[in-house]
Formats: sequence, structure tokens, C-alpha cells
Amino acid sequence: MATRGDWLKVPAASPHAAARQAAAERQAVLTKPPGSLGMLETIAVRLAGLQGTPHPHLDRVWITIFAGDHGVAAEGVSAFPQAVTVEMIRNFARGGAAICVAARALGAELEIINLGTALTLEPEAGVKDQILGPGTANFTQEPAMTEHQLAQALGAGRHAAERARLADCQLFIGGEMGIANTTSAAALACTLLNANPVVLAGPGTGLDQRGVAHKAAVIQRALDHHAGHLASPLEALRRLGGFEIAALTGAYLASAHMGLPVLVDGFISSVAALVATHIQPNAADWMFFGHASAEPGHAAVIAALGVTPLLDLGMRLGEGSGAAAAVPLLRLACALHNEMATFAEAQVSTRL
Amino acid sequence: MATRGDWLKVPAASPHAAARQAAAERQAVLTKPPGSLGMLETIAVRLAGLQGTPHPHLDRVWITIFAGDHGVAAEGVSAFPQAVTVEMIRNFARGGAAICVAARALGAELEIINLGTALTLEPEAGVKDQILGPGTANFTQEPAMTEHQLAQALGAGRHAAERARLADCQLFIGGEMGIANTTSAAALACTLLNANPVVLAGPGTGLDQRGVAHKAAVIQRALDHHAGHLASPLEALRRLGGFEIAALTGAYLASAHMGLPVLVDGFISSVAALVATHIQPNAADWMFFGHASAEPGHAAVIAALGVTPLLDLGMRLGEGSGAAAAVPLLRLACALHNEMATFAEAQVSTRL
Repeated sequence: MATRGDWLKVPAASPHAAARQAAAERQAVLTKPPGSLGMLETIAVRLAGLQGTPHPHLDRVWITIFAGDHGVAAEGVSAFPQAVTVEMIRNFARGGAAICVAARALGAELEIINLGTALTLEPEAGVKDQILGPGTANFTQEPAMTEHQLAQALGAGRHAAERARLADCQLFIGGEMGIANTTSAAALACTLLNANPVVLAGPGTGLDQRGVAHKAAVIQRALDHHAGHLASPLEALRRLGGFEIAALTGAYLASAHMGLPVLVDGFISSVAALVATHIQPNAADWMFFGHASAEPGHAAVIAALGVTPLLDLGMRLGEGSGAAAAVPLLRLACALHNEMATFAEAQVSTRL
Repeated sequence: MATRGDWLKVPAASPHAAARQAAAERQAVLTKPPGSLGMLETIAVRLAGLQGTPHPHLDRVWITIFAGDHGVAAEGVSAFPQAVTVEMIRNFARGGAAICVAARALGAELEIINLGTALTLEPEAGVKDQILGPGTANFTQEPAMTEHQLAQALGAGRHAAERARLADCQLFIGGEMGIANTTSAAALACTLLNANPVVLAGPGTGLDQRGVAHKAAVIQRALDHHAGHLASPLEALRRLGGFEIAALTGAYLASAHMGLPVLVDGFISSVAALVATHIQPNAADWMFFGHASAEPGHAAVIAALGVTPLLDLGMRLGEGSGAAAAVPLLRLACALHNEMATFAEAQVSTRL
């Protein structure tokens, strides 16, 4: 597996302990009771360590949306038709989707990568085609991806993170689009967490109770079909994942290698982050989590990762939208850290 | 009580039902699964009703910080010396406090009102003096405020909200500063919620367990001293409140009268909001709640108000900082609502 494996084994970069310590010391003398800015303090201190400076900034944000179709959609696991993947790629390119609005509000770079759809997308300005096939195979019957497709999908994510770095961006956000991708993400999470599909399958774009039960049964069939071949996280990703989920995994790993902080979105992105940490545990050092998704499986993934997302707004859209919504908090954390006066500067008394 | 009471009894403005309905109908046809933007959808729909337009905006935000000292500080209920009230007013005026940084980040108007401090503040550019006395009286021994002081404090809040309206701002945020004001707020909350001080007293700026127990005992003494005189929310406010808490109450009531949405901050502001809703229940229509404070009493106040704050970041600073941190979410909610394409516009298929 030399074609796909070598770069994945590069260790994550190490955060800068001295910069982190300097930032923590600064937080302790800013004009507020220590700890009273809560997570805004810990964000600033973490970012200082990740950026290697006592004064972190988050001016330039990069967002890549990875889109691809899923063969498992044939099992009737989504409330929306498969055509929506192509239609939403076009909507991303034309600026009408939620993530487009959020990216404009943030002044963020936004790129859209088409990794392969079941329906043909006419050439569309603003969409980068990196087609790996007409969607993945139906993983209830065969592996979702070939070895080559997996390597290419991971590489697509890696190259997106590298473009973000080259553009001097200080934060990478990955988004995803692909009808049936909560089924793929839930199947992967079941394998990695040794959990029951009944617990991790959720409504996705809006299944009713019966639809969720069917989705759980489909996932169970897939787990049974691939039983004995899922011990390696990469092999689990190949058999149960999707192009966009593999791309996110590659992007998170490459970001950790390069020392680029990432802000993870919701359920699907967090499953990709979970795969990444199974491959390279220290990749977690570079991850922030934007929000707790309303998709029920997210709580288990977040718990396994041992993290606390910044927002909990009942969002469940994907596209990177929940991560984008959290960016102003990271920016505010930096601004407070850099711009507040110290007790000494402002001549304010410290505690009794 | 004509001097203080007449304007308080004006009913709150009524939200615009048709604008709200039009906004809800628009949310249902934007290119996303219905409900998938969670609270960002409900915010946009509520704001549409409050602004009387199907396309709400939050470009201009107003922040007033009300500062004042508390006689009950003499009971040793704060981890910081009383001098900090004056010192922080100066820090607000000079731009070094957390709320100043947040206001700059939001492009918000920020004004600072000094309602009266124990120590003298030299004249300071950027501070509006509306001095009602050298802080409130020690409410373990006598009412915190005279009738006149209460009326003036309520009026100070009203006038701030009116200035926000005159400046064509679309959102009012009130902040507060005053050493010992969590003691005052907790005492008020105990009265309004019929709760035990042991449950609602918290560390404030950083008391240890013993300090919190002492604070609860001080509050219990005050409740015993004023027993039989606390049935009216205004009288409870006069006896147990503070200048800045009364000003926040007046600002929230006046905003509701004028139809100006407010974004409530943490524990102290929420207690003022609770007082306001006890005086005029419909004032709640105009309130958003920015964050869940780490101050333990906040949960009870929030539960009594029946609201879900937008953020939960472990913040406990006051100054309006938790409300300011939530403004980008309100703005994002508006942007998504106004700028996303509909299914028809983007030619995206609807659900199966």
C-alpha cells in the first residue's frame, strides 16, 4: 500500500510549549477574574501553542468542501434523492448554499472539490473536478472504494490542506456534501467505536423513525458483510467510507503534519477526524470542534474524541456550516487575548 | 410612586406576526433540510417578527455598560476590593476591558455610565456620570436604594435604550460592573424564585467554598431583614438590587416598549431581565439570551425564564461580554436567511 500509506505515517507537528506557556501567563494578568472568559481563554492559549506565538491571530480562514456520491444511497437511506449531490455542488459554486453565505461573512477562501457523483455535473466555474468514479460502490455488497480510490481521496484532502497553507491561511475547515453520507459515517463510527448501528444511526437530512430503523439495518448488513476486515482504520475507511470522508481524513492528517489548526464541523467531519486520530493520535492536537450536531451519533464520536465543541445550536446541515459558525469565537478569543489591558497596564487592583 | 412607575406600565410592543410567518415560510424553502440550521433558523424567524420585516438585519449594535458600587461589599462578599469598580470604569473608558475589545470587533457603539461609586473617579473622557450616590446602601441593614434612586436608575436604563433607538441600532446589549453585584443579583433571584441562597450564591469573581457559604449567609440575613416587603418586584429591586441592575431592568423594559430587541448577558443581566418580566411579562418577547454563565445561579434564572442561551462557554465575566460573543451568531442567522438560495432558485430537488 505504498501508494497511499507513506505520507500518512508522518507524525503530527508538535505544538510550541513556550508560546503556549507565555500565552497562559498573559491570560492570568489580563483585567478579568482568572478563568472568567472560559473557553475563550483556553482557545487563545491553545492557538498560541499551535501558531508558535504568544499572540495568535485568525485573520485568514480556508474552507474546502469535498463532495461525492455514495453507492449505499441505492438502499434508500436518505430523505433526499441522489440528484441533490450534483445540484448542491452547483449551488455551492453559485454562492447559494449556507456555507457560501458563511464563508462570505467570514471573508474566508472557499473551494469546492467534486470527487465524483452518480449524475453528471455539467462543467461549472468554481468547481474543481477530481473525479474518482461515479460515487462509491454500495458497501453493503463490496468495499466502497478501491485501494487506488482511497489513496486518491486521501491525497485530495492533503492537497487541499497544502493549498490552505500555501495561501498563508491560519485555519482549515473541511466541509462535505454527499447524499447518504451519514450512513457511511455512522457505519465507520460503529466500527471504530464498536457501537451498535441502532445507537449511531440518525435521521440525517430528515428520515422518520422507520427510515432510521431501516438505515440501522442497512449498516448492520454492511458490518456483517465486511466482518473480519475492519480492524485497520484505513481499511475500514476504504470499505465503509466515502470519497469526501476520506478526503477530510487526509486533510486533517496533512494539516497536523504541517502544523495547521483545523476546525472540525459536525457528525461526518468528526468521524473523519476520528479516523485520522486512529491513524495518528497526535493529530488531535491540531483539531478544534465547531459544534455539537443534532445528528444523534455525534455525541458518541465527540465523547470518544474527548472534546467539547464550541457551539450547540441544534445544527445538522454539514457543508462545514457548524465550523464556520464558530470561527467568530476563535477570532474573538484572539482579539481578547491580544488587546485586553493587563492589571498593571490599567492600574486595576488584583484579588484580595 | 408616580415618579418611577408610570412608564414602566406601558405594555411591550407586539411582534409582527405576518413578517414572522413570511420568514418561517422562507426558511422552509431555503436549500437545506428543513430545521437543519437549528437555532440559526429560529433566531432569524424571531428577528423578522421583531423587526417587522421578512428580511431582518443586525448591522448596528449598541452596548451600554452600567457601573455602580454596592453597600453590601462591606460584608466581605467579593474576592476583589471595591476599588476595582472605579478602576474598571476607567479601563472601560480607555478601551482595555474585554467588552471594549468585543465592541470593537463587532463595530458596536459602546457607552459607559457611572451610576455612583464608593471611591471617587476623576473625570474621565468616555464616561457619562449619572451619579445616584456613593453606591447603594448595605442591604443587610436597610434598603439598597431610596425610592428616588430606584426611579433614577430605572430611568438611566430607559434613556440608554432610547439613545440606542435614536442611533438606529437594531440590538441593545446591557453590561454591568460593580463589585459585589452577584450578591445583589442572587438575593433578588432568591426572592423572585423563592429559592434558597445556598442554591443561588456562587463564587462570583472567584470566592472559595467558604466565601460562597458566607455570601449565602449574608443574603439570608438580608432576606430575613426585608421579609414581608419583597412581594412587589419593584420593591424587591429597590431593597436588594443595585443601581446597575435597576438600570438594566429599565433598559429591558424600555426596549420592549419601543420594540427594540435586546441580547441579555449572563447572571446579573438575566436577573434584571427576570425583574423586567415580573413587571411586564411580554417584555420577554424582545429578549435573546447570549450565553449560559458559569455562575451557578444562572441556570435557575434561565430555567425560570424558560429560555435557551445561545452560547455555553464557561464564561462568567459580565460587562456584557457573553452577549457580545453571541452577536456574530445573530448576524450569521440573518445572513443565511437573507442570502441563501431557495430550492426553486437553485434548481435543487426537494425531499422524496
